[in-house]
Parts: sequence; structure tokens; C-alpha cells
Amino acid sequence: MKINILGCYAATPRSFTNPTSQVLEMQNHHFLIDCGEGTQVQLRRNKIKFSRIKHIFISHLHGDHFYGLVGLVSTFRLLNRETELHIYGPKGIKEIITLQLKLANSWTNFPLIFHELTSKDPQLLYENDKLSVTTIPLKHRVYTNGFLFREKKGDRKLLIDKAEEYNIHYSLFNSLKAGKDVRAEDGKLIANHLVTADPPPPKSYAFCSDTVYDVEIVPLIRNVTALYHESTFLEEQMELAFPTKHSTAKQAASIAKLAEVQTLILGHYSTRYANIDQFRIEAEEIFPKVILADDGKEIIVE
Amino acid sequence: MKINILGCYAATPRSFTNPTSQVLEMQNHHFLIDCGEGTQVQLRRNKIKFSRIKHIFISHLHGDHFYGLVGLVSTFRLLNRETELHIYGPKGIKEIITLQLKLANSWTNFPLIFHELTSKDPQLLYENDKLSVTTIPLKHRVYTNGFLFREKKGDRKLLIDKAEEYNIHYSLFNSLKAGKDVRAEDGKLIANHLVTADPPPPKSYAFCSDTVYDVEIVPLIRNVTALYHESTFLEEQMELAFPTKHSTAKQAASIAKLAEVQTLILGHYSTRYANIDQFRIEAEEIFPKVILADDGKEIIVE
Repeated sequence: MKINILGCYAATPRSFTNPTSQVLEMQNHHFLIDCGEGTQVQLRRNKIKFSRIKHIFISHLHGDHFYGLVGLVSTFRLLNRETELHIYGPKGIKEIITLQLKLANSWTNFPLIFHELTSKDPQLLYENDKLSVTTIPLKHRVYTNGFLFREKKGDRKLLIDKAEEYNIHYSLFNSLKAGKDVRAEDGKLIANHLVTADPPPPKSYAFCSDTVYDVEIVPLIRNVTALYHESTFLEEQMELAFPTKHSTAKQAASIAKLAEVQTLILGHYSTRYANIDQFRIEAEEIFPKVILADDGKEIIVE
Repeated sequence: MKINILGCYAATPRSFTNPTSQVLEMQNHHFLIDCGEGTQVQLRRNKIKFSRIKHIFISHLHGDHFYGLVGLVSTFRLLNRETELHIYGPKGIKEIITLQLKLANSWTNFPLIFHELTSKDPQLLYENDKLSVTTIPLKHRVYTNGFLFREKKGDRKLLIDKAEEYNIHYSLFNSLKAGKDVRAEDGKLIANHLVTADPPPPKSYAFCSDTVYDVEIVPLIRNVTALYHESTFLEEQMELAFPTKHSTAKQAASIAKLAEVQTLILGHYSTRYANIDQFRIEAEEIFPKVILADDGKEIIVE
């Protein structure tokens, strides 16, 4: 599981910061999460192939989270994309994108499929045999969702030496991986656990931005491998967090602690802070394992 | 007269190029011309104060010319702008911007005034006592305008030593600057040309992008001080220019020659070209004074 941070700063631009966008690599998927202005250039700079992106998840319709979407969609067209593109985001996103394509006289030459969201309850957005994606309803100034990416439990790991030792025919290996007991060549029943091992534990990633401090999300993200939680402010500006419906680094750490996650990733820093080290210092007072997101950073979660 | 090139490359993104946007400084105005994705960051990098921008001119509704507009407007709001902002562009631009502001629940706290264009004839957009701005109708795949910025003839230059020598009271100096003859203290009529000199010749700037090669614009831009003319392609890709309604460097130079302009500025290079020197070489075969636009370049026109 790998997270490429393309941008992780809040709205007001600086010369060398980017608004929110990241790519989650999970089970051979490249999920694009949010798409602030300049995302397509950040994809280029981080050498992520445009064609790998098939699903885009937009948390909310504030500009620093989606103003780069129409440009990316237009570029897909210029690059003669043919494969489907799925866009998941709040109701209204379809009208915004299609209006602009229409006025530019340039409809896409690939299927562009919108999944508009309105529910305030967690909702399954995508699922295959390896993973699922569900919404995490968040509280912000406009309708907002976080996203939970969860690997499914994988096949049991075949211990090939043991399987040969027990004289099991290779045509039964898939049954072993599926957890079944099988018969050896001599007809003897072999218990599955003798020739397989537990699969690696499934990983999970929760993206929560933008949001006010909200303990209601804790049961939804409990025990995730990595939690990205916004931390727009430091303690000193704490009085700004609630009225703007944002969080501080300490509040993000409290959520991580309550949800007993493995790793907390902080981001969505207000551009008023020239240096982001203080975010880690404040969060670590509450939760030990903190990673600071930064533009261009590649975070590999083991 | 100064032109800050914020971006001058065509649509397909590369890691370190920017789509079209430039700032023209003329008579204490900062006119923003086109506003491709990333313009607000380019303004920061080029240290142009956001508050200086009061008029934005959008040539056409292809993304590489205006996808940065909504982000810039949103940022003006975050920065608590209060002064009016005028946006001139094709019909539809108002709907695109206001729809996005509405869905983000964030109307501006400053007057945002749209001037939507539909005319296929040249049209006066703005005028004061120092300058005027008119459209230059262009031929492209969608409705497109270039823009002509023209200084008005300034006051005559007062030769202060001469005025004193002829015993002219200082209360008459404004009349002299306005070109009138005046009476000296002894009542004698003094011819204006004896105590004033011609003002510096007014400057003019024509922005023509995007456009196919089109001699119909020649009378509109005749003798301008500087012409920015798009040159998406080199001669080798000439067969692409007409169907995509773009121009080659040589075609841009032909227009410059026919219109007898003083300086030609080339830009809107296709990102297929790793090096832009060849644009100048090909244009100079036809027209001698060529400047290559490049992102971050400041062009001072004397």
C-alpha cells in the first residue's frame, strides 16, 4: 500500500505548495483522491501514468479539493483515453464538469461515469474481490465525505514444501489457498493448517479531509492501517478550527488514538505556517506514530 | 509597457510548463489576459500582487485559457478582497464560475462583474483617459477574441526652461500640455511648439491566441508596438495547423509583417517540442524582430 501525496496544503496558494490530491496504490489500483488545481502537473512530476487512474474520489466541492478535475478530464481526452473513468463526488459535480466540456465544444471520447453522492450514511462506492471503498460522512461547511479503502482478507499462503511432503496434487492448491482441507494422493485427508499459513493481514486506508473534530467517525475507521486526517491548524489557532469546521493536529491525533489506528498521516496545513514540523510535535503528545504528509512525498505503509 | 508571461504553452501538461496567462502592465493597470490552470500560483511566483488585478480578459473557453479563473476568484475571496473585479469573456463564463461558487457555498464578498461577449465584430471593452481595450475577433474552433490594448496620445511634454524664458505663468502650463497657444506675462501670444515637445508615441499591444492564420486581423492590429501571436506548431507540423485552427511560427511572422508591427512575441507552443528555439529561427526568416515568450519571462517593450 502506497500513498503518493501530490498536494496537502489548504486553499490559499503559495509559490510552491499544492492543494489536496493524492494517489493511493492498493491491490494494483491507483485511486485518485481529491484533485485540487494543478493535480495533472503534479501527476506528471511524480511520474504517475495518467492511464492508471480509473477512479477519482472527490471529498467535497471546495475549490482546493476539485478545481483540477476538469483540467485532468480534458487532458485525458487530449491523450486519446479510451477506458472508462469513474468520478465519485457530491451532487453537482457532474453539472460543473459537463457544463465546461460542453462550452469548450469538447465532449470526451471515453466513457465518463459520475457517481453523485448525497447520503449522510456510509455508502459502498466500489467493490471487487480484493477490496472495497466506502464513504466516511464528515462534518464540514459543505456536504463532505471521507473515503475508506479496505483490502479483503487474501488467500491463505501455500507452503509449497509442506504440500509436496504431504503428497498433495497441484490441482488442489487453489482449494488449499481457499482454506479447504484436501485429500493427499493416497486418499488421506490433510488439514488445511498443516500446509498453509495465514495470509498477510489486509490493509486499510481512511482519508478524512476536510472535517471538524468529530468522534462519530471513530467506529468507522477503527483499527485502520493508516488514517489521513486533516490538521489545518496548530493549537495556537485552535479557536479558528471549530468555526471553519477544520481540525488541529492534536484533534487529529485524538481521533487516531480513539480509533486505535496504526499510523496517523497529517495534512491540509494552513499556508500561514512556513514550517510544518510543529504539527508532528503537537500530534505526538497524544499519538505516537505520526507521518507528516508533504507535496511529492511517497508514503509506503507496511 | 511590460508583459509578464505566466504561462505560454498549449494544453497538454508537462512537469514544468504552464498554460496561457499573462499580465500586461500599461498606464498603471495590471491587465490579466487568460487564466489557465495554475495561474494563481504563477502570480505568486512572479511576485505580482493579486490586488493589482482589476480586469481579466478571457480569449475563449478552452481549458488551457481559463481553468485557473475559478481558483483565482475563490482566492480573492479568501484574501478578503473588496474592490471590483471585471471579467470579460465568451458567453457561458458567468454560468461556469457562479455555479462553482454556489456549490461551494461561497459567494464573493467583492463585486464580481461579468462582461459576456458574443459579437463577431471588434468591440470596445474598457476605456479611460489613458487607454482603451477592444476585442480582435479570431477564428478558432470555438468563439474566440484577441484583445487590443492601446494607449491614448499623451499630453505634450512641457519644456520648463523654455516656458520660463518666454515668461509664461505656471497656471498656463496645463494649457500648454494640452497643446494650446498661450499668452506670456507681457500679453504676447506664444506658439505652443516653442515651449513643448511631442509626447512619447502611444504604445499598443495586441494579444492574438488562439487563432488560425487569418489575414482579416491585419487591419485591426496594424502598426502595434507588440503583437503576441500564437505559434502552436513549427513548419514540420504545418498540416496540423489548419484542422486544429492554430498557427505556425512562420504564419505568425507573416501576420506581423503584413501588419507592420514593431515586435512579434511568439507563444502557445505545443508541448511536443522540448526546445522552443526553432520557433524563433523559422519566424525570423519572415519577420526580423521576434521575442520568444517563456513562462516567468518579463518582456519590457520600449
